[in-house]
Amino acid sequence: MSYGERHESSGVVETAFELDVDGRRVPGLVWSPDDETPRPLVMLGHGGTSHKRGDYILAMARLLARRHGIRAFAIDGPGHGDRLAEGEEVDFERAWGDERTSDWVVEDWRASLEWLRGTQAVTRVGYWGLSMGTMMGVPVVASLADVEAAVLGLMGFWGPNSARIRADAAKIDCPVHFLVQWDDEIVPRDRCFDLFGALGTDEKSMLVNPGPHAAVPPTVMRGSLEFLATKLANDSN
Amino acid sequence: MSYGERHESSGVVETAFELDVDGRRVPGLVWSPDDETPRPLVMLGHGGTSHKRGDYILAMARLLARRHGIRAFAIDGPGHGDRLAEGEEVDFERAWGDERTSDWVVEDWRASLEWLRGTQAVTRVGYWGLSMGTMMGVPVVASLADVEAAVLGLMGFWGPNSARIRADAAKIDCPVHFLVQWDDEIVPRDRCFDLFGALGTDEKSMLVNPGPHAAVPPTVMRGSLEFLATKLANDSN
Repeated sequence: MSYGERHESSGVVETAFELDVDGRRVPGLVWSPDDETPRPLVMLGHGGTSHKRGDYILAMARLLARRHGIRAFAIDGPGHGDRLAEGEEVDFERAWGDERTSDWVVEDWRASLEWLRGTQAVTRVGYWGLSMGTMMGVPVVASLADVEAAVLGLMGFWGPNSARIRADAAKIDCPVHFLVQWDDEIVPRDRCFDLFGALGTDEKSMLVNPGPHAAVPPTVMRGSLEFLATKLANDSN
Repeated sequence: MSYGERHESSGVVETAFELDVDGRRVPGLVWSPDDETPRPLVMLGHGGTSHKRGDYILAMARLLARRHGIRAFAIDGPGHGDRLAEGEEVDFERAWGDERTSDWVVEDWRASLEWLRGTQAVTRVGYWGLSMGTMMGVPVVASLADVEAAVLGLMGFWGPNSARIRADAAKIDCPVHFLVQWDDEIVPRDRCFDLFGALGTDEKSMLVNPGPHAAVPPTVMRGSLEFLATKLANDSN
Protein backbone atom coordinates (compact mmCIF):
# COMPACT_ATOMS: atom_id res chain seq x y z
CA MET A 1 0.00 0.00 0.00
CA SER A 2 1.12 3.49 -0.68
CA TYR A 3 -0.57 6.65 0.55
CA GLY A 4 0.55 9.25 -1.88
CA GLU A 5 0.14 12.79 -3.00
CA ARG A 6 -2.34 15.04 -1.25
CA HIS A 7 -3.65 18.23 -2.65
CA GLU A 8 -6.43 20.52 -1.66
CA SER A 9 -8.96 22.38 -3.79
CA SER A 10 -11.52 24.69 -2.16
CA GLY A 11 -11.78 22.67 1.02
CA VAL A 12 -11.59 19.21 -0.53
CA VAL A 13 -8.48 17.17 0.15
CA GLU A 14 -7.68 14.67 -2.60
CA THR A 15 -5.30 11.87 -1.68
CA ALA A 16 -3.90 9.22 -3.98
CA PHE A 17 -3.44 5.63 -2.79
CA GLU A 18 -2.40 2.36 -4.33
CA LEU A 19 -3.10 -1.11 -3.02
CA ASP A 20 -1.88 -4.53 -3.97
CA VAL A 21 -4.82 -6.93 -3.99
CA ASP A 22 -3.85 -10.55 -4.73
CA GLY A 23 -1.09 -9.25 -6.96
CA ARG A 24 -3.28 -6.72 -8.75
CA ARG A 25 -2.27 -3.09 -8.69
CA VAL A 26 -5.28 -1.04 -7.52
CA PRO A 27 -4.78 2.73 -7.96
CA GLY A 28 -7.25 4.96 -6.14
CA LEU A 29 -8.14 8.45 -5.00
CA VAL A 30 -10.03 9.59 -1.93
CA TRP A 31 -11.69 12.99 -1.51
CA SER A 32 -12.75 14.41 1.83
CA PRO A 33 -13.20 17.66 3.73
CA ASP A 34 -10.92 16.09 6.39
CA ASP A 35 -9.66 12.75 7.74
CA GLU A 36 -11.01 12.78 11.28
CA THR A 37 -14.72 13.67 11.33
CA PRO A 38 -16.91 10.56 11.06
CA ARG A 39 -18.67 10.91 7.71
CA PRO A 40 -20.52 8.75 5.20
CA LEU A 41 -18.43 7.45 2.31
CA VAL A 42 -19.46 6.94 -1.31
CA MET A 43 -17.62 4.61 -3.67
CA LEU A 44 -17.52 6.17 -7.16
CA GLY A 45 -17.34 3.74 -10.08
CA HIS A 46 -16.27 5.34 -13.36
CA GLY A 47 -17.57 4.55 -16.84
CA GLY A 48 -15.94 2.68 -19.70
CA THR A 49 -12.78 4.26 -21.20
CA SER A 50 -12.75 6.79 -18.33
CA HIS A 51 -10.80 6.49 -15.08
CA LYS A 52 -10.85 7.27 -11.36
CA ARG A 53 -10.38 10.98 -12.01
CA GLY A 54 -12.63 11.36 -15.04
CA ASP A 55 -14.37 14.73 -15.29
CA TYR A 56 -17.73 13.72 -13.82
CA ILE A 57 -16.19 11.48 -11.14
CA LEU A 58 -14.18 14.45 -9.91
CA ALA A 59 -17.28 16.67 -10.08
CA MET A 60 -19.35 14.15 -8.09
CA ALA A 61 -16.59 13.73 -5.50
CA ARG A 62 -16.32 17.48 -4.99
CA LEU A 63 -20.08 17.94 -4.77
CA LEU A 64 -20.31 15.14 -2.21
CA ALA A 65 -17.63 16.78 -0.07
CA ARG A 66 -18.70 20.40 -0.44
CA ARG A 67 -22.47 20.17 -0.52
CA HIS A 68 -23.06 17.06 1.53
CA GLY A 69 -20.00 16.69 3.76
CA ILE A 70 -19.55 13.15 2.45
CA ARG A 71 -16.22 11.62 1.50
CA ALA A 72 -15.75 9.56 -1.63
CA PHE A 73 -13.20 7.30 -3.22
CA ALA A 74 -12.67 5.91 -6.69
CA ILE A 75 -10.41 3.20 -8.07
CA ASP A 76 -9.48 2.51 -11.65
CA GLY A 77 -11.60 -0.27 -13.12
CA PRO A 78 -10.10 -3.36 -14.78
CA GLY A 79 -7.93 -2.41 -17.73
CA HIS A 80 -8.53 1.31 -17.16
CA GLY A 81 -6.64 4.37 -15.89
CA ASP A 82 -3.34 3.75 -14.19
CA ARG A 83 -3.75 0.00 -14.60
CA LEU A 84 -2.76 0.51 -18.21
CA ALA A 85 0.87 0.48 -19.24
CA GLU A 86 2.40 3.74 -20.47
CA GLY A 87 0.86 4.61 -23.85
CA GLU A 88 -1.57 1.68 -23.76
CA GLU A 89 -5.20 2.41 -24.79
CA VAL A 90 -8.32 1.00 -23.14
CA ASP A 91 -9.44 -2.24 -24.79
CA PHE A 92 -12.89 -2.67 -23.27
CA GLU A 93 -13.45 -6.23 -24.45
CA ARG A 94 -10.04 -7.30 -23.24
CA ALA A 95 -10.48 -5.49 -19.91
CA TRP A 96 -13.58 -7.59 -19.21
CA GLY A 97 -12.51 -10.65 -21.20
CA ASP A 98 -11.67 -12.95 -18.29
CA GLU A 99 -14.68 -14.57 -16.64
CA ARG A 100 -13.09 -13.88 -13.25
CA THR A 101 -13.10 -10.11 -13.84
CA SER A 102 -16.25 -9.44 -11.81
CA ASP A 103 -14.77 -11.33 -8.87
CA TRP A 104 -11.57 -9.31 -9.11
CA VAL A 105 -13.60 -6.12 -9.24
CA VAL A 106 -15.44 -7.06 -6.05
CA GLU A 107 -12.20 -7.87 -4.25
CA ASP A 108 -10.55 -4.64 -5.40
CA TRP A 109 -13.41 -2.52 -4.05
CA ARG A 110 -13.69 -4.57 -0.87
CA ALA A 111 -9.99 -4.20 -0.12
CA SER A 112 -10.07 -0.48 -0.88
CA LEU A 113 -13.07 0.07 1.38
CA GLU A 114 -11.44 -1.87 4.21
CA TRP A 115 -8.25 0.11 3.83
CA LEU A 116 -10.19 3.39 3.78
CA ARG A 117 -12.08 2.46 6.92
CA GLY A 118 -8.73 2.02 8.66
CA THR A 119 -7.53 5.41 7.46
CA GLN A 120 -10.52 7.77 7.75
CA ALA A 121 -13.55 7.80 10.07
CA VAL A 122 -16.40 6.29 8.05
CA THR A 123 -20.04 6.05 9.12
CA ARG A 124 -22.35 4.68 6.39
CA VAL A 125 -21.35 3.56 2.91
CA GLY A 126 -22.95 4.07 -0.50
CA TYR A 127 -22.08 3.26 -4.10
CA TRP A 128 -22.45 5.49 -7.17
CA GLY A 129 -21.65 4.27 -10.67
CA LEU A 130 -23.18 4.46 -14.14
CA SER A 131 -22.53 2.42 -17.27
CA MET A 132 -19.31 0.46 -16.55
CA GLY A 133 -19.73 1.88 -13.05
CA THR A 134 -22.82 -0.34 -12.86
CA MET A 135 -21.05 -3.32 -14.46
CA MET A 136 -18.75 -3.03 -11.44
CA GLY A 137 -21.43 -1.81 -9.10
CA VAL A 138 -23.97 -4.63 -9.33
CA PRO A 139 -21.47 -7.30 -8.19
CA VAL A 140 -19.96 -4.92 -5.62
CA VAL A 141 -23.27 -3.84 -4.08
CA ALA A 142 -24.54 -7.43 -4.09
CA SER A 143 -21.38 -8.67 -2.36
CA LEU A 144 -20.50 -5.94 0.15
CA ALA A 145 -22.94 -5.88 3.06
CA ASP A 146 -21.53 -2.45 3.99
CA VAL A 147 -23.33 -0.74 1.13
CA GLU A 148 -26.59 0.82 2.33
CA ALA A 149 -27.66 2.75 -0.78
CA ALA A 150 -26.66 2.83 -4.43
CA VAL A 151 -27.03 4.89 -7.57
CA LEU A 152 -26.80 2.68 -10.66
CA GLY A 153 -27.83 2.94 -14.29
CA LEU A 154 -27.00 3.34 -17.99
CA MET A 155 -26.56 -0.43 -17.99
CA GLY A 156 -28.67 -3.54 -18.34
CA PHE A 157 -28.43 -7.18 -19.24
CA TRP A 158 -25.77 -6.30 -21.77
CA GLY A 159 -22.09 -6.75 -22.40
CA PRO A 160 -19.30 -8.98 -21.15
CA ASN A 161 -20.52 -9.59 -17.56
CA SER A 162 -24.23 -9.66 -18.42
CA ALA A 163 -24.82 -13.07 -16.81
CA ARG A 164 -23.13 -11.94 -13.61
CA ILE A 165 -25.20 -8.74 -13.53
CA ARG A 166 -28.35 -10.83 -13.92
CA ALA A 167 -27.39 -13.19 -11.11
CA ASP A 168 -26.27 -10.45 -8.71
CA ALA A 169 -29.11 -7.98 -9.34
CA ALA A 170 -31.52 -10.20 -7.44
CA LYS A 171 -29.22 -10.16 -4.40
CA ILE A 172 -29.23 -6.39 -4.01
CA ASP A 173 -31.34 -5.44 -1.01
CA CYS A 174 -30.45 -1.81 -0.30
CA PRO A 175 -32.28 1.25 -1.70
CA VAL A 176 -31.32 1.91 -5.33
CA HIS A 177 -31.85 4.96 -7.53
CA PHE A 178 -31.48 3.84 -11.16
CA LEU A 179 -30.86 6.16 -14.12
CA VAL A 180 -31.77 5.44 -17.73
CA GLN A 181 -31.33 7.50 -20.89
CA TRP A 182 -34.37 7.04 -23.14
CA ASP A 183 -32.29 7.35 -26.33
CA ASP A 184 -29.33 5.30 -25.11
CA GLU A 185 -27.46 4.28 -28.23
CA ILE A 186 -25.08 1.92 -26.42
CA VAL A 187 -27.22 0.01 -23.91
CA PRO A 188 -30.80 -0.22 -25.26
CA ARG A 189 -33.33 1.13 -22.75
CA ASP A 190 -35.29 -2.13 -22.66
CA ARG A 191 -32.20 -3.95 -21.36
CA CYS A 192 -31.87 -1.26 -18.69
CA PHE A 193 -35.54 -1.59 -17.75
CA ASP A 194 -35.06 -5.35 -17.35
CA LEU A 195 -32.16 -4.80 -14.97
CA PHE A 196 -34.22 -2.34 -12.92
CA GLY A 197 -37.00 -4.91 -12.73
CA ALA A 198 -34.57 -7.60 -11.58
CA LEU A 199 -33.10 -5.61 -8.67
CA GLY A 200 -34.02 -7.55 -5.55
CA THR A 201 -34.70 -4.54 -3.36
CA ASP A 202 -38.22 -3.28 -2.72
CA GLU A 203 -36.95 0.26 -2.38
CA LYS A 204 -35.95 1.32 -5.83
CA SER A 205 -36.82 4.05 -8.30
CA MET A 206 -35.92 4.53 -11.95
CA LEU A 207 -35.51 7.99 -13.45
CA VAL A 208 -35.59 8.10 -17.25
CA ASN A 209 -34.51 11.15 -19.25
CA PRO A 210 -34.35 11.84 -22.97
CA GLY A 211 -31.01 11.84 -24.75
CA PRO A 212 -28.12 9.54 -25.54
CA HIS A 213 -25.97 7.42 -23.19
CA ALA A 214 -23.59 10.10 -22.00
CA ALA A 215 -26.11 12.96 -21.73
CA VAL A 216 -27.53 12.55 -18.22
CA PRO A 217 -28.79 16.05 -17.30
CA PRO A 218 -26.70 17.88 -14.66
CA THR A 219 -29.77 18.26 -12.41
CA VAL A 220 -30.20 14.48 -12.49
CA MET A 221 -26.54 13.93 -11.61
CA ARG A 222 -26.87 16.31 -8.66
CA GLY A 223 -30.20 14.75 -7.65
CA SER A 224 -28.60 11.32 -7.51
CA LEU A 225 -26.18 12.61 -4.87
CA GLU A 226 -29.07 14.02 -2.88
CA PHE A 227 -30.59 10.53 -2.88
CA LEU A 228 -27.36 9.12 -1.40
CA ALA A 229 -27.01 11.96 1.10
CA THR A 230 -30.54 11.31 2.37
CA LYS A 231 -30.10 7.56 2.60
CA LEU A 232 -26.69 7.77 4.29
CA ALA A 233 -27.66 10.41 6.86
CA ASN A 234 -27.28 8.94 10.30
CA ASP A 235 -30.81 9.66 11.37
CA SER A 236 -32.52 8.35 8.23
CA ASN A 237 -33.32 5.23 6.29
CA MET B 1 -71.85 30.34 -12.57
CA SER B 2 -72.22 30.02 -8.86
CA TYR B 3 -69.52 30.78 -6.32
CA GLY B 4 -70.50 28.73 -3.35
CA GLU B 5 -69.50 27.57 0.08
CA ARG B 6 -66.15 28.64 1.50
CA HIS B 7 -64.46 26.97 4.36
CA GLU B 8 -61.02 27.22 5.82
CA SER B 9 -58.71 24.54 7.16
CA SER B 10 -55.33 25.49 8.65
CA GLY B 11 -54.82 28.45 6.39
CA VAL B 12 -56.25 26.98 3.19
CA VAL B 13 -59.52 28.43 1.94
CA GLU B 14 -61.58 25.95 -0.06
CA THR B 15 -64.29 27.43 -2.25
CA ALA B 16 -66.87 25.56 -4.31
CA PHE B 17 -67.90 26.80 -7.75
CA GLU B 18 -70.10 25.55 -10.52
CA LEU B 19 -70.01 26.60 -14.15
CA ASP B 20 -72.27 25.98 -17.09
CA VAL B 21 -70.12 25.17 -20.13
CA ASP B 22 -72.13 24.69 -23.34
CA GLY B 23 -74.94 23.26 -21.25
CA ARG B 24 -72.70 20.97 -19.21
CA ARG B 25 -72.69 21.33 -15.44
CA VAL B 26 -69.06 21.69 -14.29
CA PRO B 27 -68.68 21.42 -10.50
CA GLY B 28 -65.33 22.56 -9.08
CA LEU B 29 -63.34 23.46 -6.01
CA VAL B 30 -60.53 25.96 -5.60
CA TRP B 31 -57.99 25.97 -2.76
CA SER B 32 -55.82 28.93 -1.89
CA PRO B 33 -54.09 30.67 1.00
CA ASP B 34 -55.97 33.82 -0.15
CA ASP B 35 -57.68 35.43 -3.16
CA GLU B 36 -55.55 38.51 -3.71
CA THR B 37 -51.86 37.62 -3.79
CA PRO B 38 -50.67 36.78 -7.32
CA ARG B 39 -49.75 33.09 -7.17
CA PRO B 40 -49.19 30.15 -9.52
CA LEU B 41 -52.19 27.89 -10.04
CA VAL B 42 -52.24 24.12 -10.52
CA MET B 43 -55.15 22.30 -12.16
CA LEU B 44 -55.69 18.97 -10.37
CA GLY B 45 -57.20 16.16 -12.46
CA HIS B 46 -58.59 13.28 -10.41
CA GLY B 47 -58.43 9.57 -11.24
CA GLY B 48 -61.15 7.20 -12.43
CA THR B 49 -64.06 6.58 -10.00
CA SER B 50 -62.71 9.37 -7.77
CA HIS B 51 -63.82 13.02 -7.83
CA LYS B 52 -62.66 16.62 -7.36
CA ARG B 53 -62.31 16.14 -3.61
CA GLY B 54 -60.86 12.62 -3.57
CA ASP B 55 -58.42 11.97 -0.72
CA TYR B 56 -55.20 12.53 -2.63
CA ILE B 57 -56.54 15.49 -4.62
CA LEU B 58 -57.36 17.22 -1.34
CA ALA B 59 -53.95 16.27 0.06
CA MET B 60 -52.15 17.64 -3.03
CA ALA B 61 -54.20 20.86 -2.95
CA ARG B 62 -53.38 21.46 0.70
CA LEU B 63 -49.68 20.70 0.19
CA LEU B 64 -49.57 23.10 -2.75
CA ALA B 65 -51.13 25.86 -0.66
CA ARG B 66 -49.29 25.28 2.60
CA ARG B 67 -45.81 24.22 1.46
CA HIS B 68 -45.57 26.02 -1.85
CA GLY B 69 -47.99 28.97 -1.62
CA ILE B 70 -49.64 27.78 -4.83
CA ARG B 71 -53.37 27.72 -5.42
CA ALA B 72 -55.11 24.79 -7.05
CA PHE B 73 -58.45 23.89 -8.50
CA ALA B 74 -60.18 20.66 -9.46
CA ILE B 75 -63.30 19.88 -11.42
CA ASP B 76 -65.24 16.66 -11.60
CA GLY B 77 -64.33 14.64 -14.70
CA PRO B 78 -66.92 13.43 -17.20
CA GLY B 79 -69.45 11.13 -15.51
CA HIS B 80 -67.78 11.55 -12.12
CA GLY B 81 -68.47 13.26 -8.78
CA ASP B 82 -71.28 15.77 -8.71
CA ARG B 83 -71.96 15.25 -12.40
CA LEU B 84 -73.65 12.01 -11.39
CA ALA B 85 -77.29 11.93 -10.44
CA GLU B 86 -78.19 11.17 -6.82
CA GLY B 87 -77.36 7.53 -6.13
CA GLU B 88 -75.82 6.95 -9.56
CA GLU B 89 -72.51 5.06 -9.68
CA VAL B 90 -69.54 5.83 -11.94
CA ASP B 91 -69.73 3.93 -15.22
CA PHE B 92 -66.24 4.51 -16.61
CA GLU B 93 -66.93 3.19 -20.09
CA ARG B 94 -70.08 5.22 -20.37
CA ALA B 95 -68.40 8.34 -18.97
CA TRP B 96 -65.86 8.22 -21.83
CA GLY B 97 -68.14 6.54 -24.36
CA ASP B 98 -68.80 9.57 -26.59
CA GLU B 99 -66.01 10.37 -29.01
CA ARG B 100 -66.48 14.07 -28.19
CA THR B 101 -65.64 13.51 -24.51
CA SER B 102 -62.01 14.67 -24.79
CA ASP B 103 -63.18 17.89 -26.48
CA TRP B 104 -65.71 18.49 -23.72
CA VAL B 105 -63.01 17.85 -21.12
CA VAL B 106 -60.75 20.47 -22.72
CA GLU B 107 -63.55 23.03 -22.83
CA ASP B 108 -64.56 22.37 -19.21
CA TRP B 109 -60.99 22.94 -17.98
CA ARG B 110 -60.47 25.94 -20.26
CA ALA B 111 -63.66 27.62 -19.03
CA SER B 112 -62.80 26.88 -15.40
CA LEU B 113 -59.31 28.31 -15.78
CA GLU B 114 -60.64 31.44 -17.46
CA TRP B 115 -63.21 31.91 -14.74
CA LEU B 116 -60.56 31.38 -12.05
CA ARG B 117 -58.26 33.94 -13.64
CA GLY B 118 -61.09 36.47 -13.35
CA THR B 119 -61.64 35.64 -9.70
CA GLN B 120 -58.18 35.18 -8.19
CA ALA B 121 -54.78 36.63 -9.08
CA VAL B 122 -52.97 33.94 -11.08
CA THR B 123 -49.36 34.04 -12.29
CA ARG B 124 -48.22 30.81 -14.00
CA VAL B 125 -50.32 27.70 -14.57
CA GLY B 126 -49.52 23.99 -14.21
CA TYR B 127 -51.43 20.73 -14.52
CA TRP B 128 -51.24 17.68 -12.25
CA GLY B 129 -53.18 14.49 -12.97
CA LEU B 130 -52.54 10.75 -12.90
CA SER B 131 -54.45 7.87 -14.50
CA MET B 132 -57.79 9.37 -15.64
CA GLY B 133 -56.17 12.65 -14.63
CA THR B 134 -53.80 12.04 -17.56
CA MET B 135 -56.60 10.92 -19.89
CA MET B 136 -57.95 14.43 -19.25
CA GLY B 137 -54.53 16.03 -18.91
CA VAL B 138 -52.96 15.13 -22.24
CA PRO B 139 -55.70 16.85 -24.28
CA VAL B 140 -55.88 19.74 -21.79
CA VAL B 141 -52.11 20.40 -21.67
CA ALA B 142 -51.86 20.03 -25.47
CA SER B 143 -54.72 22.50 -26.00
CA LEU B 144 -54.21 25.17 -23.33
CA ALA B 145 -51.19 27.35 -24.09
CA ASP B 146 -51.42 28.65 -20.50
CA VAL B 147 -50.00 25.43 -19.08
CA GLU B 148 -46.26 25.78 -18.47
CA ALA B 149 -45.52 22.51 -16.63
CA ALA B 150 -47.33 19.23 -16.05
CA VAL B 151 -47.22 16.12 -13.92
CA LEU B 152 -48.76 13.18 -15.76
CA GLY B 153 -48.61 9.39 -15.50
CA LEU B 154 -50.21 6.04 -14.66
CA MET B 155 -51.59 6.13 -18.20
CA GLY B 156 -50.50 5.22 -21.68
CA PHE B 157 -51.88 4.38 -25.08
CA TRP B 158 -54.76 2.62 -23.38
CA GLY B 159 -58.47 2.96 -22.85
CA PRO B 160 -61.34 4.88 -24.41
CA ASN B 161 -59.48 8.02 -25.57
CA SER B 162 -56.24 6.25 -26.49
CA ALA B 163 -56.16 7.61 -30.04
CA ARG B 164 -56.66 11.16 -28.77
CA ILE B 165 -53.89 10.72 -26.20
CA ARG B 166 -51.57 9.52 -28.97
CA ALA B 167 -52.40 12.47 -31.21
CA ASP B 168 -52.15 15.10 -28.47
CA ALA B 169 -49.02 13.77 -26.72
CA ALA B 170 -46.87 14.98 -29.62
CA LYS B 171 -48.26 18.51 -29.23
CA ILE B 172 -47.19 18.91 -25.61
CA ASP B 173 -44.24 21.28 -25.44
CA CYS B 174 -43.98 22.22 -21.77
CA PRO B 175 -41.82 20.44 -19.16
CA VAL B 176 -43.44 17.16 -18.02
CA HIS B 177 -42.69 14.92 -15.05
CA PHE B 178 -44.21 11.51 -15.78
CA LEU B 179 -44.92 8.82 -13.16
CA VAL B 180 -45.16 5.09 -13.82
CA GLN B 181 -45.80 2.17 -11.49
CA TRP B 182 -43.64 -0.80 -12.51
CA ASP B 183 -46.28 -3.34 -11.47
CA ASP B 184 -49.28 -1.42 -12.81
CA GLU B 185 -52.07 -3.97 -13.11
CA ILE B 186 -54.43 -1.62 -14.94
CA VAL B 187 -52.32 0.24 -17.49
CA PRO B 188 -49.36 -1.99 -18.49
CA ARG B 189 -46.05 -0.20 -18.00
CA ASP B 190 -45.02 -0.65 -21.63
CA ARG B 191 -48.05 1.40 -22.72
CA CYS B 192 -47.01 4.09 -20.25
CA PHE B 193 -43.43 4.05 -21.54
CA ASP B 194 -44.75 4.52 -25.08
CA LEU B 195 -46.73 7.58 -24.00
CA PHE B 196 -43.68 9.05 -22.28
CA GLY B 197 -41.67 8.50 -25.46
CA ALA B 198 -44.37 10.21 -27.54
CA LEU B 199 -44.51 13.41 -25.48
CA GLY B 200 -43.40 16.18 -27.81
CA THR B 201 -41.46 18.16 -25.22
CA ASP B 202 -37.67 17.87 -24.93
CA GLU B 203 -37.86 18.57 -21.22
CA LYS B 204 -39.37 15.48 -19.70
CA SER B 205 -38.47 12.90 -17.08
CA MET B 206 -40.08 9.61 -16.15
CA LEU B 207 -39.94 8.29 -12.60
CA VAL B 208 -40.77 4.59 -12.21
CA ASN B 209 -41.50 2.97 -8.87
CA PRO B 210 -42.39 -0.59 -7.87
CA GLY B 211 -45.94 -1.46 -6.92
CA PRO B 212 -49.43 -1.49 -8.39
CA HIS B 213 -51.39 1.31 -10.06
CA ALA B 214 -52.64 3.08 -6.97
CA ALA B 215 -49.49 2.74 -4.86
CA VAL B 216 -47.40 5.75 -5.86
CA PRO B 217 -45.09 6.34 -2.86
CA PRO B 218 -45.93 9.45 -0.77
CA THR B 219 -42.42 10.84 -1.32
CA VAL B 220 -43.00 10.63 -5.07
CA MET B 221 -46.35 12.41 -4.77
CA ARG B 222 -44.72 15.19 -2.77
CA GLY B 223 -41.75 15.30 -5.15
CA SER B 224 -44.10 15.82 -8.09
CA LEU B 225 -45.37 19.01 -6.45
CA GLU B 226 -41.81 20.20 -5.94
CA PHE B 227 -41.30 19.79 -9.68
CA LEU B 228 -44.31 22.03 -10.36
CA ALA B 229 -43.30 24.57 -7.71
CA THR B 230 -39.86 24.88 -9.31
CA LYS B 231 -41.18 25.19 -12.84
CA LEU B 232 -43.89 27.70 -11.91
CA ALA B 233 -41.68 29.94 -9.80
CA ASN B 234 -41.57 33.38 -11.38
CA ASP B 235 -37.82 33.50 -11.66
CA SER B 236 -37.35 30.06 -13.16
CA ASN B 237 -37.91 27.94 -16.21
